Amino acid sequence: MADPRFFRAAGPLTLREIARLASAELEKGADPERSFHDVAPLDTAGEDDVSFLDNTRYLDAFRSSKAGACVVGPQHVEHAPKGMALLVSTKPYRGYAQVARAFYPPQPRDEGRHPAAIVDPTARIGPGTEIGAGAVIGARVEIGPDCLIGPNAVIADGVVVGAGTEIGANAYLSHCLVGARCQIHAGVCIGNRGFGFAMDAEGVLDVPQLGRVIVEDDVEVGANSTIDRGAGPDTVIGAGSKIDNLVQIGHNVRLGRQCVLVSQSGIAGSTKLEDHVVVAAQAGVAGHLTVGKGAQLAAKSGVMRDVPPGLAVGGAPAMPLREFFRLCTIWQRQLKARGKRDD
Amino acid sequence: MADPRFFRAAGPLTLREIARLASAELEKGADPERSFHDVAPLDTAGEDDVSFLDNTRYLDAFRSSKAGACVVGPQHVEHAPKGMALLVSTKPYRGYAQVARAFYPPQPRDEGRHPAAIVDPTARIGPGTEIGAGAVIGARVEIGPDCLIGPNAVIADGVVVGAGTEIGANAYLSHCLVGARCQIHAGVCIGNRGFGFAMDAEGVLDVPQLGRVIVEDDVEVGANSTIDRGAGPDTVIGAGSKIDNLVQIGHNVRLGRQCVLVSQSGIAGSTKLEDHVVVAAQAGVAGHLTVGKGAQLAAKSGVMRDVPPGLAVGGAPAMPLREFFRLCTIWQRQLKARGKRDD
Amino acid sequence: MADPRFFRAAGPLTLREIARLASAELEKGADPERSFHDVAPLDTAGEDDVSFLDNTRYLDAFRSSKAGACVVGPQHVEHAPKGMALLVSTKPYRGYAQVARAFYPPQPRDEGRHPAAIVDPTARIGPGTEIGAGAVIGARVEIGPDCLIGPNAVIADGVVVGAGTEIGANAYLSHCLVGARCQIHAGVCIGNRGFGFAMDAEGVLDVPQLGRVIVEDDVEVGANSTIDRGAGPDTVIGAGSKIDNLVQIGHNVRLGRQCVLVSQSGIAGSTKLEDHVVVAAQAGVAGHLTVGKGAQLAAKSGVMRDVPPGLAVGGAPAMPLREFFRLCTIWQRQLKARGKRDD
Repeated sequence: MADPRFFRAAGPLTLREIARLASAELEKGADPERSFHDVAPLDTAGEDDVSFLDNTRYLDAFRSSKAGACVVGPQHVEHAPKGMALLVSTKPYRGYAQVARAFYPPQPRDEGRHPAAIVDPTARIGPGTEIGAGAVIGARVEIGPDCLIGPNAVIADGVVVGAGTEIGANAYLSHCLVGARCQIHAGVCIGNRGFGFAMDAEGVLDVPQLGRVIVEDDVEVGANSTIDRGAGPDTVIGAGSKIDNLVQIGHNVRLGRQCVLVSQSGIAGSTKLEDHVVVAAQAGVAGHLTVGKGAQLAAKSGVMRDVPPGLAVGGAPAMPLREFFRLCTIWQRQLKARGKRDD
Repeated sequence: MADPRFFRAAGPLTLREIARLASAELEKGADPERSFHDVAPLDTAGEDDVSFLDNTRYLDAFRSSKAGACVVGPQHVEHAPKGMALLVSTKPYRGYAQVARAFYPPQPRDEGRHPAAIVDPTARIGPGTEIGAGAVIGARVEIGPDCLIGPNAVIADGVVVGAGTEIGANAYLSHCLVGARCQIHAGVCIGNRGFGFAMDAEGVLDVPQLGRVIVEDDVEVGANSTIDRGAGPDTVIGAGSKIDNLVQIGHNVRLGRQCVLVSQSGIAGSTKLEDHVVVAAQAGVAGHLTVGKGAQLAAKSGVMRDVPPGLAVGGAPAMPLREFFRLCTIWQRQLKARGKRDD
Repeated sequence: MADPRFFRAAGPLTLREIARLASAELEKGADPERSFHDVAPLDTAGEDDVSFLDNTRYLDAFRSSKAGACVVGPQHVEHAPKGMALLVSTKPYRGYAQVARAFYPPQPRDEGRHPAAIVDPTARIGPGTEIGAGAVIGARVEIGPDCLIGPNAVIADGVVVGAGTEIGANAYLSHCLVGARCQIHAGVCIGNRGFGFAMDAEGVLDVPQLGRVIVEDDVEVGANSTIDRGAGPDTVIGAGSKIDNLVQIGHNVRLGRQCVLVSQSGIAGSTKLEDHVVVAAQAGVAGHLTVGKGAQLAAKSGVMRDVPPGLAVGGAPAMPLREFFRLCTIWQRQLKARGKRDD
């Protein structure tokens, strides 16, 4: 069971309710009134727990699991251990997510401001919003209803935060408009001046960064990530985009809807990612480029040119991923050939 | 116009004043008394705005721009749309920067300490310095005049900060001397103990890190970057250096004057960068090396050996950039050859 | 001498005491009663200072050093300058560490809470623990004796911190149990929700992250690093592991004992590192892998498959390091061959 120090379980739920939540078909033979108390991973789940199988790496764990019920794809049903109630779904991960969310619903907030929060009298705070200890809310800030502002977070003058958004502890927001239902995690910095300056024999001269950061609805930004404000245009994070920890987004970057940026990736200034682009871990995209809709950038790739829609690329400098894999094969062959000569 | 929630424009300025600020020649025919109200990017500028062209990628935007005036290099004058007043300069980006700085001058500070700042009685704070809510200033700290210490920043015992320097929200400074007119952005950590320990069969033993970080004048350090203090010698950041977000600088590193370290790059311990070195995004330099004056390290390069002055390098392990480009060409040729065989 | 603004030296110590601390043999001829006042690097040490030589790069500095005494390996004794007292040890770095720790012992803490700390009444704080200004300690938190909680750090509800552990300024801990004698540096975020969500045509759906982060004893986590909590299983950091700055550790990752993760490296979700694995700077390991005991991942390597125990790998995608070096040689040869053709 999830550690009660940190989580509060809301069960039990019957198999019938669980199947409905998971949009899954309950395999015949299972008792729809049987009740379950929790979710758990395959290897630690017991008879009162619901688990899931999404990745074939864990097929062995599935075969030997003691989970009482499991959300599973139709192709894996045949591997189920005896006695396990099967919730069959073509989207087992999504199904499991819905079940887990029912077992662990969001905790109610402590509406209001902690007495140690520092809120400028000109700030407007919506009802149901909780402001943590030590949080600093600047002049003319607007925070919607049902938000959570973490302890010691700093929201600078003029920032707007939409309904239901959570701002993590020690995060810093300036020069930005943040949409509804966003999750901005701890330590995130949004709205710093972009990295714009003239440097030559005359010296270094900063170029004023006069844009903002627009974070659309339902965006998640992972811990300690940084998003610079625009130089003149805005930096824009499209609705539903998921940004992991320690990601860097330069000034004027525009992300489309539901982009995914995995940890330690970086997007240089003025580059545009269209909708549904996936940037894997530690990948980087140079400035002033366009990455087309649905393109996928492999981990550690270094993108130096525009990427057409739908293309998967890899390597540094990046090339179509199929070519990169072929290149890796060529290298292996060259190594083998040379190995023989060395013998 | 820049969002008035975050920026306050100071115009109007006449074309004559703008030309002087930009150190630009006003193309004949333009009325020097015509007044302008703002700066704006080429694609959104209107007739009262000053824009600039610096990158040939944006030549089309220049051709169709509705900007009333534009700072532009002499080679691009011929592409200007009719009616645009041209401010011709060999350094259009620097010229634009000066104009933008005149339209958006620094805002006056709220001198003094926020009542919720926590300042040790032994700290000395210069006149004109603003200390934000929740900032914590330790014992014997010395902060010069006209500084800005952001909300919830922490300045540990004994740290010295020079005149006119800005420390961002939630930044942490310890064991360091910071010069004048620096910009240390939000979330930066300067002065943590370096990554020095002995680890063997006897166990792990930390080596005391007894140096400091010396940040010279006019340095910028981007959000959430980290600079460790020296192990014995100091870690030194040379005057005028520009460090982007999420950059790592290890103990004993010495940067010369006006080095540029782009986002997510890292410099390992005891390495020296001479003046004017440029380290592009996600590049890394191993420890105990010297990178010569004016050397340029391409994005994602992995530098394992000393780099001579002036050389551009790329790849991992890094080689002269020309060789790396040639190597990329060789790979493309090998791929093509193999592609044919596969057909 | 270390800057007295930041460090307080505790000497003098006699050579006899120093030799004992360093587990070193005092070379004959040296006066065991001679007293020393400080430690210093080879190039700046004077006659009252103890230095050390660990890296042959610094052999020249050793030859010309004016240090009064030096901890040195037996193989370097012959290069010592005249008059230097030699402390001969097969582990000179460890020996030096012990000496430096004696000269610079930990400073006594200011036991108790700063009046500006915000501590929930249900939190339990051990004796001898110092809580800095602006620190926020949540409900039911348990902090052991002799801990140091830095200014503006945030410890969320239910977190447990073991005896003697230090939490840096502006760090954020949630959903975690931290062991004894750990050093969690400034800006670290531990316990954020992992990067787990279902994303498809139906939209984006977060998967509850129901695990914790278990940080075992004697772990160090560098500034601004991030460690996500598990999705169901826990994320575990094994005892004695050393994690540098800006490192990312995904949900469900398990590190064994005494792993070393150098700056800007990242470990993706559900990957297991066995004991004594070394991950060099900017390396990355994909998810759901196992890296065997004592394996070494070179800087910038991109590990896409399991790594057997003891193997050193490099490159991206990673291969055995010997192969990678051979591949680099092949590339150099191809470049040379092509260079000739180009002439």
